[in-house]
Amino acid sequence: MEKNRVGIVLGSDSDLPVMEEAARILQDFGVSYEMTIASAHRSPDLAAEYARSAEERGIEVIIAGAGMAAHLPGVLAAYSCLPVIGVPLKGGALNGLDSLYSIVQMPPGVPVATVAIDGARNAALLAVQMLSIKDPELREKFRAYKKELAEKTAKKAEKLKTESGGR
Amino acid sequence: MEKNRVGIVLGSDSDLPVMEEAARILQDFGVSYEMTIASAHRSPDLAAEYARSAEERGIEVIIAGAGMAAHLPGVLAAYSCLPVIGVPLKGGALNGLDSLYSIVQMPPGVPVATVAIDGARNAALLAVQMLSIKDPELREKFRAYKKELAEKTAKKAEKLKTESGGR
Amino acid sequence: MEKNRVGIVLGSDSDLPVMEEAARILQDFGVSYEMTIASAHRSPDLAAEYARSAEERGIEVIIAGAGMAAHLPGVLAAYSCLPVIGVPLKGGALNGLDSLYSIVQMPPGVPVATVAIDGARNAALLAVQMLSIKDPELREKFRAYKKELAEKTAKKAEKLKTESGGR
Amino acid sequence: MEKNRVGIVLGSDSDLPVMEEAARILQDFGVSYEMTIASAHRSPDLAAEYARSAEERGIEVIIAGAGMAAHLPGVLAAYSCLPVIGVPLKGGALNGLDSLYSIVQMPPGVPVATVAIDGARNAALLAVQMLSIKDPELREKFRAYKKELAEKTAKKAEKLKTESGGR
Amino acid sequence: MEKNRVGIVLGSDSDLPVMEEAARILQDFGVSYEMTIASAHRSPDLAAEYARSAEERGIEVIIAGAGMAAHLPGVLAAYSCLPVIGVPLKGGALNGLDSLYSIVQMPPGVPVATVAIDGARNAALLAVQMLSIKDPELREKFRAYKKELAEKTAKKAEKLKTESGGR
Amino acid sequence: MEKNRVGIVLGSDSDLPVMEEAARILQDFGVSYEMTIASAHRSPDLAAEYARSAEERGIEVIIAGAGMAAHLPGVLAAYSCLPVIGVPLKGGALNGLDSLYSIVQMPPGVPVATVAIDGARNAALLAVQMLSIKDPELREKFRAYKKELAEKTAKKAEKLKTESGGR
Amino acid sequence: MEKNRVGIVLGSDSDLPVMEEAARILQDFGVSYEMTIASAHRSPDLAAEYARSAEERGIEVIIAGAGMAAHLPGVLAAYSCLPVIGVPLKGGALNGLDSLYSIVQMPPGVPVATVAIDGARNAALLAVQMLSIKDPELREKFRAYKKELAEKTAKKAEKLKTESGGR
Amino acid sequence: MEKNRVGIVLGSDSDLPVMEEAARILQDFGVSYEMTIASAHRSPDLAAEYARSAEERGIEVIIAGAGMAAHLPGVLAAYSCLPVIGVPLKGGALNGLDSLYSIVQMPPGVPVATVAIDGARNAALLAVQMLSIKDPELREKFRAYKKELAEKTAKKAEKLKTESGGR
Repeated sequence: MEKNRVGIVLGSDSDLPVMEEAARILQDFGVSYEMTIASAHRSPDLAAEYARSAEERGIEVIIAGAGMAAHLPGVLAAYSCLPVIGVPLKGGALNGLDSLYSIVQMPPGVPVATVAIDGARNAALLAVQMLSIKDPELREKFRAYKKELAEKTAKKAEKLKTESGGR
Repeated sequence: MEKNRVGIVLGSDSDLPVMEEAARILQDFGVSYEMTIASAHRSPDLAAEYARSAEERGIEVIIAGAGMAAHLPGVLAAYSCLPVIGVPLKGGALNGLDSLYSIVQMPPGVPVATVAIDGARNAALLAVQMLSIKDPELREKFRAYKKELAEKTAKKAEKLKTESGGR
Repeated sequence: MEKNRVGIVLGSDSDLPVMEEAARILQDFGVSYEMTIASAHRSPDLAAEYARSAEERGIEVIIAGAGMAAHLPGVLAAYSCLPVIGVPLKGGALNGLDSLYSIVQMPPGVPVATVAIDGARNAALLAVQMLSIKDPELREKFRAYKKELAEKTAKKAEKLKTESGGR
Repeated sequence: MEKNRVGIVLGSDSDLPVMEEAARILQDFGVSYEMTIASAHRSPDLAAEYARSAEERGIEVIIAGAGMAAHLPGVLAAYSCLPVIGVPLKGGALNGLDSLYSIVQMPPGVPVATVAIDGARNAALLAVQMLSIKDPELREKFRAYKKELAEKTAKKAEKLKTESGGR
Repeated sequence: MEKNRVGIVLGSDSDLPVMEEAARILQDFGVSYEMTIASAHRSPDLAAEYARSAEERGIEVIIAGAGMAAHLPGVLAAYSCLPVIGVPLKGGALNGLDSLYSIVQMPPGVPVATVAIDGARNAALLAVQMLSIKDPELREKFRAYKKELAEKTAKKAEKLKTESGGR
Repeated sequence: MEKNRVGIVLGSDSDLPVMEEAARILQDFGVSYEMTIASAHRSPDLAAEYARSAEERGIEVIIAGAGMAAHLPGVLAAYSCLPVIGVPLKGGALNGLDSLYSIVQMPPGVPVATVAIDGARNAALLAVQMLSIKDPELREKFRAYKKELAEKTAKKAEKLKTESGGR
Repeated sequence: MEKNRVGIVLGSDSDLPVMEEAARILQDFGVSYEMTIASAHRSPDLAAEYARSAEERGIEVIIAGAGMAAHLPGVLAAYSCLPVIGVPLKGGALNGLDSLYSIVQMPPGVPVATVAIDGARNAALLAVQMLSIKDPELREKFRAYKKELAEKTAKKAEKLKTESGGR
Repeated sequence: MEKNRVGIVLGSDSDLPVMEEAARILQDFGVSYEMTIASAHRSPDLAAEYARSAEERGIEVIIAGAGMAAHLPGVLAAYSCLPVIGVPLKGGALNGLDSLYSIVQMPPGVPVATVAIDGARNAALLAVQMLSIKDPELREKFRAYKKELAEKTAKKAEKLKTESGGR
């Protein structure tokens, strides 16, 4: 059985609607992944155990999404040598500013690769970029994705130019 | 040998100048305490172990100070049933706003009693108030402390009134 | 007649929907409580009187929720030796940031144990933790609550793992 | 003996260097004043008593300066019918943003006339403007002050134009 | 014909729903007022003219509400010796934080008495407090208003105590 | 064929509803323009090429709108000698504060003329003001527009005065 | 005698150290300018008069720098048809965030071209870009300036590459 | 000749004191790197060219540090398929908040792995973690580094416990 390469961890099941965007991207790129929930506060042993065992289970990159005082990505990074990508989630009174600060402002020694608030899609793309370091095939898929992004934008530009017509 | 009632935990030894204010207050009130360092990120096992064992070692209240993405108080609260008081520490580019958000915005289920940025002194006074719930003698010391605060302010008021003279 | 152990004070009756979460938690833990309204600004004498008399009426912990320039928790703390837990309430143009700062940034000498914006549930849990210092039975209830939290998260994790299936 | 018309209240004696600017302005305008200290948190009874008795002692406007969770102006406003001018003071990790929010975001029913952070001078000028409502002579002094401000600026403008010379 | 004592100035007609709260309060207190629109940016001459002539037309206090880069209160204060009360209005992407800073952070020499974001009601109450300096009858009305506020809160407190029942 | 004088560039087609306000203003002033899409991140070559060629194609002013980490205006300014007007767009968790900072805080050497969040209308008016430097006819149109703004405000003022009636 | 093309207006003489950077840039580009002081609050008539007469005196672009509640650029824009460039100045407790908001968040109808906090240099460069619309010679000077910027950076890059040496 | 694996790019030579911490860490881990300067605004072609050619020159990870409107990391990410790590730099009036938002809030499609403000050290550690995906030896070095971090903290904890002595 093939091992999962990316572990997506949610701080709470309410984070699923945003975080499954990451899963979709990984599917598009054909990158195997697993998805679980492991609160840094409500189930700290589960979170610690997940991070400690991830490497030997074959996981190569961890993506963690959490809101408010979002400690999950940092806690996973504390227990693992794998790169951890943190997704600050909006929600709560401070609109994700609290989770952004809680994730990005990690002290020296234990980095978390932080993406935009609710940026689950970019988290998956970043994981793809990291895996591409040793996986040239994946690199080519990413190159194609990037090219497609540019082409789509160019087409929209063409369409708008025609429609707006200028004066 | 008497057990320590309050555990003061620092995220880093650079937090000592602020956090030892908490120790001084506890000394003034005759409350036994211990002081240690346990980074949520650099030594997560130490932090977890500290929190897990604190209760049985006789600790009744935990005070934790940390800066930046300050996960320490939340992590200790995750592993212990004791009340945890969090002290957000200034330092770093965001002047403690990051640590304030990282400490106070805890998700439902795992509270941290947060005090002001660099508010180590109030953290200790809050611990005294908590311990006073079962310790009437300590309550009386706190009452005296509060009275003294009021009297000092009254004296300063008197002095200023005299010196400023008004019109 | 049994005395109430926790006093829940609201700055305004519009705060009830959030603050009654605190009441529900206390009911679940079997902790007696009372609930009242006492604005620091509209009825300062009421608030002062409440705080001054709370201790002798048997109250052991005060929980106070307020929005905007939220002075209520600080004012209650000024008049009482009991630990005061402050709940900053969202509402108003600044989404609760004003009440967070007004509650947590207390000057040295008079602490307020601050929880998250709209964090009434955690306020009650913190009160339970404080009372557990002298009430071993309550401590065991809290331990059970904590265990249940972890188990619920573990179950949700199991469910998500199965449903997401990974790759 | 003439009554003092303005009461300047400081939350702490460390606020004196900023707040005495207010005193100087009042002296310049020949407005009698008194200066005292009355912490909303450390000496709440003193503060309440001050506010309650101010009107009958002849005070017509109260100016209150405080830092951090700056409750003093709001608390004085709660106990008095006099207009209260609040001066948020810088100091502490949040540079006065906490005191600004704590003073200006008063709930409906109890206003505080807020000036800029550390704006003690403007607080005094505002008091002068208020007193001018019934004191035409003071109004004329204020008019002269305003005219002088404009003239000073005009002179500086002239000087700069000459010195910079343009091209 | 009786002169209007308070001038309420709106930066835009879209500010009316909030600002007419101020008018309602003045009506309740029997204070004559006038209401107009005078943008500091779209009709600067109108605004300047309004401020310059207000005093001689009998206006005693100016209330000005504006949103975004809210220069109106400051501009009126620049042209008049009357006390100016500024109401920062929510609206726009920054939720009124821009108008709060634009109104409250006035430079030394030209104060604006700032109230809470959307705090039109308190602006009117503040105007009443200012006018009360020379109008003892108005002071008594304000005292009655304050008493009523306290009684209403006390009644709500009574009701909540009964309904919540405690334990 | 007449050349377009203003180039309106959108970071994404979702920015159209706001940015077409700029187009409408330019139409009102009879200023020829073109509209296109060119993401600084998804189609950087397109953006660079657009900016590099704009001057020789007759464009005199560039208006660029973008949200979140809004690099588009800065990138266009990097590749062109034309004045670039940046419109920070709301949208995303930070309500446009991120795009405001990303656009306005340009380093020395490469300015972007920044307008308010979602301020597409003012961006177009600013372009008109810039073009008026060499186009006296356009200046007169702008003067008329400004006069009309003032008159509309004056009419609304008149209407409100009548309707509110004062006391 | 040649007319001045750019008017640099300071809100206060304390703004000179920052704002004279704008003058230096204009000198470097051989653009004639004048420099004056005209507070929107302390000398509003002066400011209005300056803006009203600028166009006929030959001024083509106005640069205005101000701190705190920085109304000056907006007030000048209200009275003139010329493009106005606003420079928010640091200083005061809010580090220039107040002046940034006060300058950039202008309401529809009256734009101010805002640059970075303390960005006087970029203000002058932006003025040069605006004037270049009708002045091809100035455009070429700007192109040369831009090229030099790139070359300087390239040289620094070369130097760093050599010195750092890599591994 | 061995290729450099990590490219460190600075927006300006003034960023060197912070960014050379990244270089030091890479040296400690024996990871080859190169260091250069390439402003997204002053030398956009250089920056684009650097990013476009990095992959074929053997670079596997890019680290980019920039301040204020920090577009550099995003621009490099736009032109390259390599993972880009962004370091927001303090400096300027907003203390790095502007650069944090400008770097982390990237739109969908083009991620930047953001670390803390001035977090150059963590940027290098994150690069090491990424390279470890295909380099087991480097992974072991990182594991040793992590272990050492924990041990250092444990030693400091021991020292503090002894010195503070508790009660």
